Amino acid sequence: MSRVFNFSAGPAMLPEAVLQQAQEEMLDWHGAGMSVMEMSHRGKEFMSIAEQAEADLRSLLKVPDNYKVLFLQGGASSQFAMIPMNLASTKRKVDYINTGSWSKKAIAEAKRFADVNIAATTEDSKFTTTPGQSELQLSGDAAYVHYTPNETIQGVEFPYTPETGGVPLIADFSSTILSRPIDVSNYGIIYAGAQKNIGPAGLTLVIIREDLIGQAADDTPVMFQYATHNDNGSMYNTPPTYGWYLAGLVFKWLKDRGGLEAMAELNQRKSAALYSAIDNSDFYANPVTPESRSWMNVPFTLANADLDSKFLEGASAEGLKTLKGHRSVGGMRASIYNAMPEQGVQALIDYMAEFERVNG
Amino acid sequence: MSRVFNFSAGPAMLPEAVLQQAQEEMLDWHGAGMSVMEMSHRGKEFMSIAEQAEADLRSLLKVPDNYKVLFLQGGASSQFAMIPMNLASTKRKVDYINTGSWSKKAIAEAKRFADVNIAATTEDSKFTTTPGQSELQLSGDAAYVHYTPNETIQGVEFPYTPETGGVPLIADFSSTILSRPIDVSNYGIIYAGAQKNIGPAGLTLVIIREDLIGQAADDTPVMFQYATHNDNGSMYNTPPTYGWYLAGLVFKWLKDRGGLEAMAELNQRKSAALYSAIDNSDFYANPVTPESRSWMNVPFTLANADLDSKFLEGASAEGLKTLKGHRSVGGMRASIYNAMPEQGVQALIDYMAEFERVNG
Repeated sequence: MSRVFNFSAGPAMLPEAVLQQAQEEMLDWHGAGMSVMEMSHRGKEFMSIAEQAEADLRSLLKVPDNYKVLFLQGGASSQFAMIPMNLASTKRKVDYINTGSWSKKAIAEAKRFADVNIAATTEDSKFTTTPGQSELQLSGDAAYVHYTPNETIQGVEFPYTPETGGVPLIADFSSTILSRPIDVSNYGIIYAGAQKNIGPAGLTLVIIREDLIGQAADDTPVMFQYATHNDNGSMYNTPPTYGWYLAGLVFKWLKDRGGLEAMAELNQRKSAALYSAIDNSDFYANPVTPESRSWMNVPFTLANADLDSKFLEGASAEGLKTLKGHRSVGGMRASIYNAMPEQGVQALIDYMAEFERVNG
Repeated sequence: MSRVFNFSAGPAMLPEAVLQQAQEEMLDWHGAGMSVMEMSHRGKEFMSIAEQAEADLRSLLKVPDNYKVLFLQGGASSQFAMIPMNLASTKRKVDYINTGSWSKKAIAEAKRFADVNIAATTEDSKFTTTPGQSELQLSGDAAYVHYTPNETIQGVEFPYTPETGGVPLIADFSSTILSRPIDVSNYGIIYAGAQKNIGPAGLTLVIIREDLIGQAADDTPVMFQYATHNDNGSMYNTPPTYGWYLAGLVFKWLKDRGGLEAMAELNQRKSAALYSAIDNSDFYANPVTPESRSWMNVPFTLANADLDSKFLEGASAEGLKTLKGHRSVGGMRASIYNAMPEQGVQALIDYMAEFERVNG
């Protein structure tokens, strides 16, 4: 089969040009006579790859000099523990905003280490909206405020950056990083699993303000202390070198395509077209309040759920893959990250229209 | 440049046939229309890859049914904390055998969580030997006994499996796993970072006896509890899918080449040839007592250290790469894992002889 349009929420589609370059370089990177995955992480070849990746990421996100970029392992799920263990080790109060499944997981883990205040929750709405700034009941004296700018499962996204009155704002950007420009200086920590908008699973990106490093309690595992990784350039132990390299190829691809301003325009257009197709039909529906709809993850249901299997089979036959919704939400979900081309979204819209015409 | 012989200690050389297959499948795995790294880890394609990899590993190592195989992240350095946090959470006594740099790191981390007894240390010998069974001062009532069967930096290897009198034996097999058959039933936990004899960095293999799962203290991060990963088939969060796939290709390659018995024969032959070349010369030296010499990591020094740079430059020009010894030991180190072909070792031996002829 030729390449499909893969709407997986993560691991997700990667740019074809990136995969082609990785393929070409698989047995011999730039004449080194070896694959990137065979290189010593401390050798000059891999060091150049690692440094270039960080430089390109810093350029894309305009990361200020007082922020460190860490290339870690363990996924967002490890960050859920590392954040309170590093920033609230004395059982300090911490504020969490609950807007969906990933917020809930972050909260559950934080409760093991810190005194969690739920500053707002949209659970009553079944996570179909985001709270406004005026609805946030922030403690004021919290060690930090944590939120999830984009919820992958519910497809709900903050249309604004919460104001915290100087308290460090910590954000799980796993499913929306690099989809548009952000002002890094608004944040204490930005973290993201790579497998949605960055590269392959197994790499976790952490962008952390310098003054937040080095506060972990003594009984924190050395691998869970930000200082360990910061003091060693993310090479305290062997990093996930191949993922780091692929992330670098993705960063380069983004720069070549005009950076995050260009991606924002494209992502806005892609998601607007899909939401419009859903809204202009009585056959499809999306439950999220329009101002909180995600650009990256678009869940939708069919008016008749009995047709779900038929919809998925037909889509698969057209090369539109991994559209099944998360079991907790049902229906469909189209994840349309940076690497999903506009033609992919259009092919989905065309298929949806044809399916409605035949079955509606 | 054509493919080189890469003597890196890790990340290390991978079988060329494995890299070729990964290259061929990069954009389209078995007609799926996507790369393995783009696949949902919960989809049927990746599940089949994951299950086959585990089945092949179990077959290679003859893993008994009462052992679980976990595919994790974080490297051996994370295991250094996970082991005491999971097995000695009430500050129990634990026994550690100290035979080199990696033993020391494991001990330093364990001390943060448990009451560590050093059952033996060879530090006085500068880690050039292993302690005999009769020299082990085991506590008897320890939660476990930890040792490092092969020390990557010092090139020292246990010629026997320690007897612990029923206390679980835990082993960091990072640099020797799959180099020969082992009797898994002798161990409580076997763990290994992938980047030496398994696959790319970022994957960590844990083989754990079932009864050792589920003993972690409540304040252990959920990602650091073996039960979390065991209960979820190593998919509590997104696993390092591409590393898991590549490990599977390596396992298949090992099976096709006759399994671990064949690798043992080959590895024994490769290391014997290299040690023989060193021992039959006054120009080169290896300090390790012969019965404790590693099959995988062969450190050696030149009689005149001033020639080190010249040796490395000449080797590099011949396509013999990454031979510089670890800074703590100096000289050279040739890591000759499964993927290093016999011709690579012979090319090194030939180069060493010629270098001695010209410079000796």
